[in-house]
Formats: sequence, C-alpha cells, structure tokens
Amino acid sequence: MNVYDTLKKLNLTLPKAPEKGGVYSPCVRFDGNLLYVSGCGCVIGEPVLGKLGADLTIEQGQEQARNCALNILAVLERETGDLNRITKCVKLLAFVAGTDTFYQQPQVANGASTLLVELFGEAPARSAIGVNALPGNIPVEIEGIFEMAD
Amino acid sequence: MNVYDTLKKLNLTLPKAPEKGGVYSPCVRFDGNLLYVSGCGCVIGEPVLGKLGADLTIEQGQEQARNCALNILAVLERETGDLNRITKCVKLLAFVAGTDTFYQQPQVANGASTLLVELFGEAPARSAIGVNALPGNIPVEIEGIFEMAD
Amino acid sequence: MNVYDTLKKLNLTLPKAPEKGGVYSPCVRFDGNLLYVSGCGCVIGEPVLGKLGADLTIEQGQEQARNCALNILAVLERETGDLNRITKCVKLLAFVAGTDTFYQQPQVANGASTLLVELFGEAPARSAIGVNALPGNIPVEIEGIFEMAD
Repeated sequence: MNVYDTLKKLNLTLPKAPEKGGVYSPCVRFDGNLLYVSGCGCVIGEPVLGKLGADLTIEQGQEQARNCALNILAVLERETGDLNRITKCVKLLAFVAGTDTFYQQPQVANGASTLLVELFGEAPARSAIGVNALPGNIPVEIEGIFEMAD
Repeated sequence: MNVYDTLKKLNLTLPKAPEKGGVYSPCVRFDGNLLYVSGCGCVIGEPVLGKLGADLTIEQGQEQARNCALNILAVLERETGDLNRITKCVKLLAFVAGTDTFYQQPQVANGASTLLVELFGEAPARSAIGVNALPGNIPVEIEGIFEMAD
Repeated sequence: MNVYDTLKKLNLTLPKAPEKGGVYSPCVRFDGNLLYVSGCGCVIGEPVLGKLGADLTIEQGQEQARNCALNILAVLERETGDLNRITKCVKLLAFVAGTDTFYQQPQVANGASTLLVELFGEAPARSAIGVNALPGNIPVEIEGIFEMAD
C-alpha cells in the first residue's frame, strides 16, 4: 500500500522536516541501503514540553511519540524523495523523559511504532527507556534505522 | 564449541522468549545477516525490581544483566532456530536503572557480556549507561546487534 | 585532507586509547567495513567529573565531549592502523550526565561532532540525550558507528 494513501487515511499530514539543533546530519545513508535517522524530537507546531509522570499523561506521551515518528518520516522523505522507497523500519530507540517513578516507557513508545507498523507492515525492533532530561525539555526523542530499496 | 554445550557446562537454561511489552518485533533481520534484538528486560521467573544504588547490590545487578543476556539468547533462538548459527555479538547497549549517585554501570553490564564471551568467543562492543527509570521498574535492559551465518 | 594534518592544524594530539573498564571490545568490525566503537568516556589525563547543570559549564561539557571523540579516534587508530582509512562517521550516540533540569545536551555533544566534521567532512547522524549518571561519574560518554575503506 502507498505510504501517502495510508497517511491520508489516518488523517495525518507530514510536517516540515525539523530544523537541526546541532552539528549533525538528520539522516546518513550507509552500508548501501541503510539509513540512520538522528534522534528526532516531538515538536510539531506548538511545543508540548515536560516529563511523563509529572506533566503529561500516557495519552499525551503517545501523541508526542507519534510526532517523533512523523518528524522521522519527514526527514526520510527529504532524504529519499519518496517514502515508498522505504522498505523497512529496522529499529527504533525511544527515549522518554520522566520522573524517577515513571515506568511505562513502552506504552509511550507505542505511539511511534504503531504508526510505523501501519505504514510499513513489519514492526521494528525497539528499546524504550526512561531518562531524566531531554533537549529543550521535550518529553520524547526517537532515533531509528531504516532500509530502502535500491 | 557448541553453544548449548557451553550453556549446560555453565548450568544455565534458556528461558522461554519474553512476552512482548509493546508494539515491536523482538528481533529484526536486516542487511543480510544482521539481527537487531530489541531491548530485553531481566525478568526470568520471579521479578527482581528496583534500582542499583538503592535496591540491588552490584552482584544482584550482574545477575539481572545476565538474565537480560539469557532473554536475548531466547529471542535469537526463536528467530534462528539454532544459536550455533550466531557467529558474533557485534554490540550491546546496556541501560542500568540507578540512583543519581550510582556509577558502576560497567560492572553490572559485565554480567551480560561475560556470558556472551563464553558463548561466542569475541567480546562485543558495548556502552553501559545509567538511567533514572526503566519499564516496569526493572533494573537492567539490554539491546544488541548480532551476526549470523548464511 | 589527511586526518593527521587536520589534527595538527587544530593543535590536537591523539591520546593513548583508553583502558577498558569492563568485559567488551573497544571496537568491533562487522558486516564488512563497518566499525562499532564502544561508548568512550571523556577522561584524558586528569579526570573532570560531575554533571552538567551542577558541576560543569556548557563549555566544559563541550571540551569533555571533544575528549570522547579523541578517545574514539584513538580506538579507531589502534583498530585500523591509520585514521585515513576511515571514510565516514555514520552516527554518534551521546549520553550527557546532568541534573533533571539540564536541557542543552545537543550543545554539549557538538563538541564531539564538530571535531569529526573537521576530520571526515560529512556530519554524522546523532542523538544526544540526558542521563542521571554515567560510569565513574564522568559527564559525557559517546559511542559511534564508522565506515572504513576496503
């Protein structure tokens, strides 16, 4: 199924690829057809800042995780020209900023991986961990490895 | 040496591959013969929960890290059908939940990498870092990349 | 441009590759020409310990991040025999130990990636995250994937 058709069906619009916040490439192609996407934050439009367990509900965290995935997709589109060239999400590493007693990182990260499964079929490998602080006080940051067709 | 013979020599039994705690694949094969294993927790049987520096000793943390490695091996066996097809552990990323003043993450992570060296020979690349919280209040979570034979 | 000429121009000297702090390989070659470099700490000479937001300024953090990059380079030189064989830094994952309200991890990590861009041209993919504690109370730890020529 066409990635853009699925996005439309889900009523989702790709954001503009996020501005870089430092000295790095948003996406690096390596080893032939692999793409390493830098950690993408969750800001799209008005920022939602703070930490899980204190400032955001699980549902809000899931929405922010989905935003990370949308930012990753925007980066991948700019890199490849066409998201239909992406054949697989290999892995996601999801960082969830939270209090010392917030333990539901996987539920938050599901907000990102659920979208990627809808778009690409196979679920990626994934780690979801808690951290005490992320850049600019964003609640979620996610990096990933993708495979593309020749 | 046969992986299963080594496990027997060490008096270790592979657990059942852990249940998934979210929307992801426990293992994704990519780029030919590489395997990305999702972050595995340390629960085998009765859970040992809490944080290094507060609730667990270093020795208990090492045992939990070894549990992570055993869970990773269970995932790899289900994926490949035979652990002897694994030729190398490329890297481990070990997350150790601890207090703000617990600084011995490498000693904890040794519990996992020591086992993998006994099984596969070469030691993997590794990062071992502290985090303030992990899913379900587990003390250790480890992800890895492995290579398998054709 | 020759990597060693650039280092000399920048008045930088490669340290001795850091001693291992656990059971792991400082560098593992995989999948042909990829190199996984284990998380390198920032200690070169007299250790600078502590956390961002409490014990170190941003500028001190950047210097420590650059130290991580220098330690990574020392590991890569030992592995390859000649840093000019490195063709690309694919990705960096930068862990910055900080207080719960320190949010400038990318600025700190720039200390490492700026140096790698000067040496190898293209900027790597990167994630920069905060953590509550790192091994031995170091402020920065960075791992990376590199590509080398045949």
